[in-house]
Amino acid sequence: MTPLRQEVIQAVQAAQSAARILAQAPTEQKNTALQAMAHALRRAEPDIVAVNQEEVASAKADGLSGAFVDRLTLTPARFQEMVASMEAVVALPDPVGQVISRWHRPNGLEIRKVRVPLGVIGIIYEARPNVTSDCAALCIKSGNAVVLRGGAESFRSNQAIRAALSQGVHSVGLPEAAITTVPSAARAAIDVLLELDQAIDVIIPRGGEALIRKIVESSRIPVIKHAKGVCHVFVDEAADLTMAQQIAINAKCQRPATCNAMETLLIHERIASAFLPQVITALRQAGVEIRGCERTRALMPDVAAATEADWSTEYLDLVLSVRVVTALDEAIRHIRTYGSAHSDAIVTEDPSHAERFVREVDSAAVYVNASTRFTDGFQFGLGAEIGISTDRLHARGPMGLEELTTYKYVVIGSGQVRT
Amino acid sequence: MTPLRQEVIQAVQAAQSAARILAQAPTEQKNTALQAMAHALRRAEPDIVAVNQEEVASAKADGLSGAFVDRLTLTPARFQEMVASMEAVVALPDPVGQVISRWHRPNGLEIRKVRVPLGVIGIIYEARPNVTSDCAALCIKSGNAVVLRGGAESFRSNQAIRAALSQGVHSVGLPEAAITTVPSAARAAIDVLLELDQAIDVIIPRGGEALIRKIVESSRIPVIKHAKGVCHVFVDEAADLTMAQQIAINAKCQRPATCNAMETLLIHERIASAFLPQVITALRQAGVEIRGCERTRALMPDVAAATEADWSTEYLDLVLSVRVVTALDEAIRHIRTYGSAHSDAIVTEDPSHAERFVREVDSAAVYVNASTRFTDGFQFGLGAEIGISTDRLHARGPMGLEELTTYKYVVIGSGQVRT
Repeated sequence: MTPLRQEVIQAVQAAQSAARILAQAPTEQKNTALQAMAHALRRAEPDIVAVNQEEVASAKADGLSGAFVDRLTLTPARFQEMVASMEAVVALPDPVGQVISRWHRPNGLEIRKVRVPLGVIGIIYEARPNVTSDCAALCIKSGNAVVLRGGAESFRSNQAIRAALSQGVHSVGLPEAAITTVPSAARAAIDVLLELDQAIDVIIPRGGEALIRKIVESSRIPVIKHAKGVCHVFVDEAADLTMAQQIAINAKCQRPATCNAMETLLIHERIASAFLPQVITALRQAGVEIRGCERTRALMPDVAAATEADWSTEYLDLVLSVRVVTALDEAIRHIRTYGSAHSDAIVTEDPSHAERFVREVDSAAVYVNASTRFTDGFQFGLGAEIGISTDRLHARGPMGLEELTTYKYVVIGSGQVRT
Repeated sequence: MTPLRQEVIQAVQAAQSAARILAQAPTEQKNTALQAMAHALRRAEPDIVAVNQEEVASAKADGLSGAFVDRLTLTPARFQEMVASMEAVVALPDPVGQVISRWHRPNGLEIRKVRVPLGVIGIIYEARPNVTSDCAALCIKSGNAVVLRGGAESFRSNQAIRAALSQGVHSVGLPEAAITTVPSAARAAIDVLLELDQAIDVIIPRGGEALIRKIVESSRIPVIKHAKGVCHVFVDEAADLTMAQQIAINAKCQRPATCNAMETLLIHERIASAFLPQVITALRQAGVEIRGCERTRALMPDVAAATEADWSTEYLDLVLSVRVVTALDEAIRHIRTYGSAHSDAIVTEDPSHAERFVREVDSAAVYVNASTRFTDGFQFGLGAEIGISTDRLHARGPMGLEELTTYKYVVIGSGQVRT
């Protein structure tokens, strides 16, 4: 066994032992741990920031992009946010131990379905040090141990954050390995991690498509993916056009780099001549580049032509594809063909159209008369978010504390045997 | 692309198209389909049985084991059971469309979490033709399409059953590809299947450990495993010993070849001298071979010595390992070390011991004063069972219709945009 392999396995096994203890920890102890973690973070701020500044300098020297360097940088405001997020998790309800349902069988057996932690959660992410503390907070609160592997460029920042957090965990009598970082920045460490299906219960990757595809292909551990969001807003013939324009602008412009931002606007042909020029003009005023279908361009000849590839592209930018459709059916078909089943909206005043859209569009979040930008754990009222699942298994859409749990059946008898 | 590859991909794509239609099918239509499927099965009985008899003859000629041939054989009684199971699914509640929860946000958004089908379910199993119709029934009722791949030795029986079922589905206006069998008995067809993560939503393998391990290692599709059951009964110092003996005998002997049968009996040292000789004598009278720890052998010197390997062995037979433990702690530790987190029981009259056992033993089903044999979808009152998950993700323990669904969020607004 290579030293790297041995080191990764040892770290993960320590996390596994810690998970067993954490699963039993009472809510009060977990909350005290979170407070101690926040306190330790604040105390370690100068050290963490110093290490982070060195890594930021290296990243700049290596010619990494401005966006990359920005995500890597722990500004004072971001540091404050990290601490505040941790403290906010204290107030959230503890899902562990919750009785999901309970019933009796004719033979007198009582069956309870009880929420329990998943166990050990592996998070693989890019060079964003704040993810380290956000994920640690949610895992501790939900009774899970976490194994964190951030991007190599933030390796030392993550180690420094983890050291502070582990100290907080340790100070309340919980095992510090409940928060574990992979002890190597080498790419090969991830390969070892993904083999450890006896010790890690789920992998949640957070990052670009290429990273996620690679993880899915090489993992023996179940993966909950956060893949791309090609989100649509369909403006129905029966839409309130003022509302439709507000929703379209919000869904595209309010924060275009997020997965729940609109990438394609679909417009019913009956209202196209009234609505399309006005919404495109407004979007352009907001700085949006438009790529349209032939019918869009017939109404607005200066719009660039959308290619077939545009319909399935997640721009994550102020770019929008626009298509005129003949009816609700074509809108649904377009979304099924090109969408990513993330978040899709209809704007309509016709309840039967709304109902069909909601039933036939099978996305994690389907909206009637609201912006797709609400697909978010905080906006949904979950109080937290470890990611947005684009998978269908275990969890779908925004994942909060409950989605970091599973259940067990507790069966209470009085001597029942099977006949 | 090889012809085999092309053939498998085409079959799965047809299932994917069918899934979209099935997801929208009303309960009434699905129930009528199930009745038509049962009817078609009954009508096709002579043809199916004739094909099955040829396959049974081949299996015998190939020298396959008696147990293998038995599982392959469709006796008249088994055929009747297949039809009856299908009809029983009609009466079960349809999980699709159920509103799991619903809440309002301060901005007026209404959020509904609504149950929807998983999509396309792949089942890989051994040469047991009745699995073909059982799984098809549950998938149709839960609005899913199913892609079935049974053992090569039952290839033609499965094709004949599928043909009858598809005819039933078709007769009520649903797409016959909702029930699809992999069109090749070649092992390579499974490899192709496991790559199709864009079309198949989940793989449920049913079979031995080796089959399941192989599938997990090569699948890009999420797998819900039904792995082994090394189940324990712990007889506490505070147990009712008459009850304990009844539970032990039932858990071991009532059907020893099942995954929820007991494989290890743990006995508290304080009651060992009173209980151990009597329970071992009774188990032996029922034909059970005993393998004991040193302390067991001190009380019953003619018991064979258990090896380290015995503690983690799923005998699936009338063999039992027995260990005397010093206390509840050691029992829990033993179960964590050697168990498979399937089904474990404590027999005790002490509520605090029961509570600790239930909290600290993290198995899919944890029992107090009842036989482990109840871990079963029918016994739990789910009305059906597609398998028993030993995984922690998505579903755990007995899986019925609900476990074949996921959810989507439906968000109803009145023009809300994000600020």
